[in-house]
Amino acid sequence: MDQLSPQIAQRLAEAAGPGGSTTEQSEIAPHLVEWRGRWQGRTPLMLKPTTTGQVSRILAICNETLTPLVPQGGNTGLVGGQIPTQGEVLLSLERMNRIRAVSAVDNTLLAEAGVILAEAQKAASEAGRLFPLSLGAEGSCTLGGNLSTNAGGVSVLRTGMIRDSVLGLEVVLADGRVLDLMRGLRKDNTGYDLKQLFIGAEGTLGIITAAQFKLFPKPSSFATALAAISGIDVAVDLLNRLQDATGGLVTAFELIPRIGLDLVVKHIPGTANPIPAHKGWSVLVEISNPGALDMTETLERTLGQAMEDGLVPDAVLAKNERERQNLWRLRETLPEAQKKDGPYIANDVAVVLSRLPELLANTQAAVQKILPGARPFTFGHIGDGNLHLAILPPVGKDDTLLPVREKIECAIQEEVGKLGGSISAEHGLGLAKNETITRYKDAVEIDLMRTLKRTLDPKNILNPGKLLPAAIAGGN
Amino acid sequence: MDQLSPQIAQRLAEAAGPGGSTTEQSEIAPHLVEWRGRWQGRTPLMLKPTTTGQVSRILAICNETLTPLVPQGGNTGLVGGQIPTQGEVLLSLERMNRIRAVSAVDNTLLAEAGVILAEAQKAASEAGRLFPLSLGAEGSCTLGGNLSTNAGGVSVLRTGMIRDSVLGLEVVLADGRVLDLMRGLRKDNTGYDLKQLFIGAEGTLGIITAAQFKLFPKPSSFATALAAISGIDVAVDLLNRLQDATGGLVTAFELIPRIGLDLVVKHIPGTANPIPAHKGWSVLVEISNPGALDMTETLERTLGQAMEDGLVPDAVLAKNERERQNLWRLRETLPEAQKKDGPYIANDVAVVLSRLPELLANTQAAVQKILPGARPFTFGHIGDGNLHLAILPPVGKDDTLLPVREKIECAIQEEVGKLGGSISAEHGLGLAKNETITRYKDAVEIDLMRTLKRTLDPKNILNPGKLLPAAIAGGN
Repeated sequence: MDQLSPQIAQRLAEAAGPGGSTTEQSEIAPHLVEWRGRWQGRTPLMLKPTTTGQVSRILAICNETLTPLVPQGGNTGLVGGQIPTQGEVLLSLERMNRIRAVSAVDNTLLAEAGVILAEAQKAASEAGRLFPLSLGAEGSCTLGGNLSTNAGGVSVLRTGMIRDSVLGLEVVLADGRVLDLMRGLRKDNTGYDLKQLFIGAEGTLGIITAAQFKLFPKPSSFATALAAISGIDVAVDLLNRLQDATGGLVTAFELIPRIGLDLVVKHIPGTANPIPAHKGWSVLVEISNPGALDMTETLERTLGQAMEDGLVPDAVLAKNERERQNLWRLRETLPEAQKKDGPYIANDVAVVLSRLPELLANTQAAVQKILPGARPFTFGHIGDGNLHLAILPPVGKDDTLLPVREKIECAIQEEVGKLGGSISAEHGLGLAKNETITRYKDAVEIDLMRTLKRTLDPKNILNPGKLLPAAIAGGN
Repeated sequence: MDQLSPQIAQRLAEAAGPGGSTTEQSEIAPHLVEWRGRWQGRTPLMLKPTTTGQVSRILAICNETLTPLVPQGGNTGLVGGQIPTQGEVLLSLERMNRIRAVSAVDNTLLAEAGVILAEAQKAASEAGRLFPLSLGAEGSCTLGGNLSTNAGGVSVLRTGMIRDSVLGLEVVLADGRVLDLMRGLRKDNTGYDLKQLFIGAEGTLGIITAAQFKLFPKPSSFATALAAISGIDVAVDLLNRLQDATGGLVTAFELIPRIGLDLVVKHIPGTANPIPAHKGWSVLVEISNPGALDMTETLERTLGQAMEDGLVPDAVLAKNERERQNLWRLRETLPEAQKKDGPYIANDVAVVLSRLPELLANTQAAVQKILPGARPFTFGHIGDGNLHLAILPPVGKDDTLLPVREKIECAIQEEVGKLGGSISAEHGLGLAKNETITRYKDAVEIDLMRTLKRTLDPKNILNPGKLLPAAIAGGN
């Protein structure tokens, strides 16, 4: 693809409008490297359209001329889906960044694919509403990327994956036709729900150019606690007790390991462990208060009962917003503390809640066989069954870890597979797991995925080789 | 199709297992008529499999022999989707009625397609959980039908359409292969979300044989009120005030017209209108209390403020469970009262909330032009933008209505279309609106629907002629 003909390049540049394309490698360079440096791409041409019509013309030309392209939002993806590793044309949606409408009456927000998540949150907040997605990269990731990877984040217990909040979608199909699914209705049973095809499809079935989202009431206050738990096996019991006691208002339930608190205190200035005597797991619990009612007493009473029952050895409640922020800081700086401590291997997996204890036991046993003394650093959205199973090297042996990286990743995936779990709960497949996944899904499912890809993108121009094994390109 | 060859009939009967088929027309008859008598079918053979393997073999034979079939659950559908009007083989899923698992830990219920909705609700309730679907036909409709029509009902504000609560699906594809998507994970970004294809597809893309559902905390109590409103234009404002005040805990917000209260009091023994002085619209409001906390005071205060602001002329709060049941009875008996009063025309439509006043004004003007004096009887799930726009004849002129039925339905659909709404919010397309819908969706959307149908069911054996125009059969 590096030999893009000058004629095609010219047609694409014209389709992208004035200022809508560049071949300047210094401008393109930041778009070619995955932010941790794991994937490096190359491209002869970056397109930066500002309208759906331009995207439509670009795709029509690509389809006609068999020119593959890779869509990109904020370039924050963790599986390489946004990187043109085969020299494809790069389609940046960043300049499609208008918020088209916000309605506090209809509780909807309509925005283009290039809008940065934090901007959407801000617009919703200014209208007195909550945008239903919050995650670490929110200052730089875009809505198009969030949709294409069906983003999760820290509010899944409250509002679900982003898929659950999509009321409408505007998509440019592989042949350039615009599919307008922007009716924005909460109820509409008039045929196949086509928008579902493109959410989580990593840009392989169509290019999402705009979407309409549900907004939610903005919580006025929270009841928040850090609770020590007696073992991983009581975490789900505690979650269910809290959900019963609050009628389902638990909006965060995040697992924190003792090693996590230790490394945060060590590496992040101004932090302190408020339950230093506890050597085991903790959970950060947050309940969104219903209107003016305060659930703190309910939280305190439920944790008190759990203490009596031996589930919770210790707990601290946030008495004000500053204390709440301090508790959240312990959770939010876990990735940073982990990174500052040295090398690590990250894994993003999920199982059904009741299998979490097995998952932890089995994966740790498998890892110890490969690298004795390796330290598990497990944290994450345990309320959704989603854990970040990170592995740190044995103390003082930093250089032993990365040589066995692939072995450890495979072993963890295998244990997840045995428990019927997901080897990519949040991040997607991209280039990282597009081959591996065929080992964990049965042939019928993989075959139907292939069939959809070939039906919607018969010329394999849309992010080819991502999400599904690259071999699909030749198998048509 | 009435000329099903004896050889094929024999093979299908064998595939369905012992006792799994019948040609006895007296047994088949109740399955051939839509319950209001609007569609009448015929079939040479009814199959009643009990296992997924049997369904798989049946479909393999149908696909091989080009034998079309119509799947059926509880036969409660309102658009004819479940009726074999062309003499197709009838596939009843009613005997696939096992609840395979209920977990109060994982908050999941796993059940086969033939399980009656009320049975699923009961199993969830016995586990201390709430099943996320409730609707009028729950005593006879089945989960397979609910999934195939993406059912809504009275709890959409709380838990969404049934699509939003599906964690896993087991589907038999047109060629008989079993697609097992039963991982049941809350987070799983490993490729296209294939289960979405089959939900709401009215049995035209595959046969759903089992599913895994999310369960929710069971509310222990409710705050409930009937509030008179000063006009349809304040309904959405009142809903948003209540959502803000409760942090989003409004679980029912149902519009009731004055004519509705009058006809209920007239036709349903033991009912009384608690706000008789009010001549206009009312809403039934219900808030699910969060755990042991009671939101009644919040509800009372919010309604009080709305009264001061001129939105709510009058309101009554339920002071106990008996009073709550009495208020709900006024809402739930609206369809029965309407039916007892004489002929009527039903319409099931949706628009975005802010366009509801326009929708009512425009549709009523259109109806008056066709039949002066016709009485609107509009009720329903206004919190979702979904109204049942029924039309009653002018007083004393019962026989004037049905002759203009089609004219009125078309006029209403046209007004809904102009406002970007849905001509079938809940009930689906089936045979009732499969031709009409092509007027309200653009060509790209219809074309992609056709493409999916041809890709997943290339021989057009699955519920042919439903959901999409019948012409698709010949257009392959």
